[in-house]
Amino acid sequence: MKIVVLGGGPGGYVAAIRAAQLGAEVTLVEKKALGGTCLNVGCIPTKVLLHTSELYTALKRESAEIGLDVPQIAVDWKKLQKRKDKIVRINTGGIDALLKKNKVAKIIGTGRFTGVHELEVSKEDGSTQTIGFDRAIVATGSVPSRVPIPGTELSAVITSDEALSLPEVPGSLCIIGGGVIGCEFASIYSSLGCKVTIIEMLPELIAVMDRDIVRCLRKEFAAAGVDVHTETRVERIEQTPKGLSITAVAPSGPITATAEKVLLSIGRRPMTSGLGLEILGVSIKKGAIEVDRNMQTAVPSIYAIGDCIGGIMLAHVASAEGIVAVEHIMGKPSPVDFRTVPSCVYTRPELASVGLTEDDAREQGLEVKTGSFPLQANAKSMIMGETGGLVKYVTDARTGEILGVHIAGPRATDIIAQGALAIRLEATLDEIETTVHAHPTVSEALLEAALAVNHRAIHSH
Amino acid sequence: MKIVVLGGGPGGYVAAIRAAQLGAEVTLVEKKALGGTCLNVGCIPTKVLLHTSELYTALKRESAEIGLDVPQIAVDWKKLQKRKDKIVRINTGGIDALLKKNKVAKIIGTGRFTGVHELEVSKEDGSTQTIGFDRAIVATGSVPSRVPIPGTELSAVITSDEALSLPEVPGSLCIIGGGVIGCEFASIYSSLGCKVTIIEMLPELIAVMDRDIVRCLRKEFAAAGVDVHTETRVERIEQTPKGLSITAVAPSGPITATAEKVLLSIGRRPMTSGLGLEILGVSIKKGAIEVDRNMQTAVPSIYAIGDCIGGIMLAHVASAEGIVAVEHIMGKPSPVDFRTVPSCVYTRPELASVGLTEDDAREQGLEVKTGSFPLQANAKSMIMGETGGLVKYVTDARTGEILGVHIAGPRATDIIAQGALAIRLEATLDEIETTVHAHPTVSEALLEAALAVNHRAIHSH
Repeated sequence: MKIVVLGGGPGGYVAAIRAAQLGAEVTLVEKKALGGTCLNVGCIPTKVLLHTSELYTALKRESAEIGLDVPQIAVDWKKLQKRKDKIVRINTGGIDALLKKNKVAKIIGTGRFTGVHELEVSKEDGSTQTIGFDRAIVATGSVPSRVPIPGTELSAVITSDEALSLPEVPGSLCIIGGGVIGCEFASIYSSLGCKVTIIEMLPELIAVMDRDIVRCLRKEFAAAGVDVHTETRVERIEQTPKGLSITAVAPSGPITATAEKVLLSIGRRPMTSGLGLEILGVSIKKGAIEVDRNMQTAVPSIYAIGDCIGGIMLAHVASAEGIVAVEHIMGKPSPVDFRTVPSCVYTRPELASVGLTEDDAREQGLEVKTGSFPLQANAKSMIMGETGGLVKYVTDARTGEILGVHIAGPRATDIIAQGALAIRLEATLDEIETTVHAHPTVSEALLEAALAVNHRAIHSH
Repeated sequence: MKIVVLGGGPGGYVAAIRAAQLGAEVTLVEKKALGGTCLNVGCIPTKVLLHTSELYTALKRESAEIGLDVPQIAVDWKKLQKRKDKIVRINTGGIDALLKKNKVAKIIGTGRFTGVHELEVSKEDGSTQTIGFDRAIVATGSVPSRVPIPGTELSAVITSDEALSLPEVPGSLCIIGGGVIGCEFASIYSSLGCKVTIIEMLPELIAVMDRDIVRCLRKEFAAAGVDVHTETRVERIEQTPKGLSITAVAPSGPITATAEKVLLSIGRRPMTSGLGLEILGVSIKKGAIEVDRNMQTAVPSIYAIGDCIGGIMLAHVASAEGIVAVEHIMGKPSPVDFRTVPSCVYTRPELASVGLTEDDAREQGLEVKTGSFPLQANAKSMIMGETGGLVKYVTDARTGEILGVHIAGPRATDIIAQGALAIRLEATLDEIETTVHAHPTVSEALLEAALAVNHRAIHSH
C-alpha cells in the first residue's frame, strides 16, 4: 500500500508513522517545517513561555510565604525566546528522526493533487516531483483567522504566530478573542508586566468550557489586573500617536481601549485552498474538507484529518484522526472514542475539560446531576499555594454515568486523563467512589467531587 | 446506632464523618491532635517541606535555562517551618470544623475498652468518662519503629517525627531505611545542602515499587550527591567528637559513615497496646489488630482500621477502610476495591504506582507483558525540565488487562489516578489506546506506554 501524507503536523506525522508501522510505504510531504502549528507556532512554544511566566508569577507572589528567599527575580525574555526556539528545534528534529526510523520518505515542498492517485510537489528549488499513491491523507492544518474589522491590516495588529516571538514584552496588549489561545497569551503577557485587555464577543471566555471552571480563571485574571470585556464587539482599530486605539461596543455602550499591540485570536480556519481537491470531487464546506467517520472524503482514495476538516482544532484530535484514517486504509478497525477528547488551557489555574459541560447536557435534554469540590479544601492544592480551583462532574441523574469532568486547578491538564478514561469506559460515580485516590494529591478531589454529587463529600464545609 | 471512634487520624475522622452522614450518633476520641500521623507528622508536613525544597532545587538548577534571572536564592528554614506548622494548623482546624458540622462529638483523652460496649476515656485533667457504644472503630494508628541497633538511644538519632522540625538543616544526615519516608527526607535535606547517606537492607530503595521507576530516583539521587548503600545492614551507631559514626556491613564488606544526625526510618508499627482489646477477645497478631474484610475484629461490636491493623500504612488506605467499616456497621455494602490503592513518593521525580509490579506479577505466575515510555520523548516533561522519568504498564499477556501502572516523573502522584481507575474497571490496553490523551501533557505518556506494550508507540526512538 502506497500512502502519501500531505502535511507534517501532529495529524500528518503521526498518521505517517502509524501507517509505516502497519507496513505501508509512506511518503510525507511538508511545505515548511515538521510539527505543524502545534510544534512550531502553537501548543509547544506557548507552553514554554507559560512554564516560565507562571513560575515567575508564582515566585513573585508566594516565595516569601513558602520560605524561599528570592530578593530579585526577572524574566530574561531573550533567553526565554531562545529556549522556546531550542525546544521547538529539538522536537522537530525528533520527528525527523522518527520518520527516518520508521522509513517514512520525507519531501519538503508544496503538494497539489493532479489526480485521484497523483500528487505534484513543487519544491523550493523550482523543480517538481509527481508522486503516485494508493491512498492520500490530507493534513494541511489551519491558519489564524482574520476578520473584516477596519484596522486589522495595521502592522501592530498581530496573530498568535507573531505573539510568540515579539522582540520584547509590550507595555500593553489588547487581545481580541478570549478563547483558549487568547487566554493563554493573556496569562503569559500579564505575568510579565504587560497591561492586558481581552475583548470577547460571547458572554464568557473560552465558550467551549464549563462556566464554573472558567469562572476560576476569571477571578485569577481579575486579581492579575487583566481587563476582560465580554459580549463586546470590536468596531475598529486605529493607529494613534499613543499606540493603537480599539473601539468596541459593550453591553453598557461604546468603549475604547488603547494598546501597544493588538492580538487577533478569534480562531483558526482550515487550510484547504490551492490543493486541487475540488476538481477531483472532494467536497469542501465552509472552507473545511468533508469526511465521513473513517476520515474518508467523497473521493475514496483521499482521506483528510486534523484542522483542515474543521471541528475541534486540537493537536491530539488530529493525531487520533490520523490513526483512524490509517487504520481504515489498512483494513483495521479503529474504535477511537472521540467523546474522550480533553480540552486544556495552560493558564494558572490550569483548566481542563472532557465530555459534556453542564449547559451542553441540559441542552441535550438530559436529566443532569452535578457535583463540585472546591480545591480550597484540598490539602495538596493548599501546599502548592493554589486553592482557587474546583473539580466538577456532570452526571446522568438516572444512572450515575459520568458525562463530563471539568477541572480548574494545579495539574488539571494532566489529571483530566482520569476523566477521559471514565467517559471511555462509561464509568459511574460508584466506580469512582470505590477507587482509592492517593492522599495528599490534587486528584483526590476527583473522589470528593464524585461524592459531592450525592452530597456526601467528606471534606465539604 | 451509637458509634465511638478511637483515634482522629485520616482513618478515624473520615469514618466518623461518614457514620454521621449515614445517621449514626458518633463520638470521636482523640488522645492528642486531630489528623493523626498524616496531618501532624506525616504526609502533610513532609509535602510542605518537599514543595519548597524541590522548587528551590529546580530553580537553582534550571532558572538560567528557562529564562529566569534569579541571582540569589536561599531557603529560609524558619519561615518554612512556620508555614508547615500553619498548614498543619489550618488542616486540623478544618477537621474540627467538619466534625462539628457533621455533629460528631469530640473528646480529647486516652481511650481504653472496659467492655465490648464500653470505653473509658482518661482526660488530661485527670477525670475519666465512660462511653457506651453499639459499635466501636479502633483507629489508633502507628508509631515509628525502633530497632535493637546499639546506639539508637543517642539523642542525635531521630525518627521522622523530629526530622520534620529540626531547628536547622544539619550538615550531614545518615538515613537508615530507604523506604518512602527515608527517600522523601533524603530529597528534602539533600536539596537544602545537607550531605545525605541512605543505608538500606534490601537490594533496592522503596522495595514496594517497580524497580524501573525506582531506578529513575536512584539516578536523581546520584546526581544530587546522595550516597546510597543497599543490601547493607547497620551494626551500630556511636557518638564521636566529629558526630555520629555509623558502622554497617555492605556486600563489599564493612563500611563506616559519619553524620551529624541519624534518621531511623525503618518503618512504623501499629499502636495497639494499652487499649484493653485482648481481654475482650480481640486478636492481635505481631502487634496488629486482626480484622476480616469488613474491618470487623473477633469481637463483633469492635472494628479496626488504618495503621493499627498493619498492612499498607497509608492515609488513603485508612480512610477507605474507615468507609468500609462504617458502611458495614450501617448495613450498606461497600465495594471499595483495594487493588486500586496508589503508592506515592513525593521526590523529584515523583514516583507513583498502582497494582502489580512486574516482579509481583511474575511471582504470581502470570503471563506478563510490559511496556514503557521514557519521558525524554514527552514534550511537556521537556518543557518542565524533567525528563528522567518513565511510564510503565504491567499487563496480562493473554487478555491485555492492565495489572499495574508505574510512573516516575513530574505530576506522577496525580497522574496515577488514571491507572487506579483502569485497574478498578479492569481496563485493557485497547481501552487506553482508544481514549484520546491531551497534548502536550505528561499524561499522554500513559497512551504511548500502552502502545509500547505491543511495540507501536508513536514517539519511540
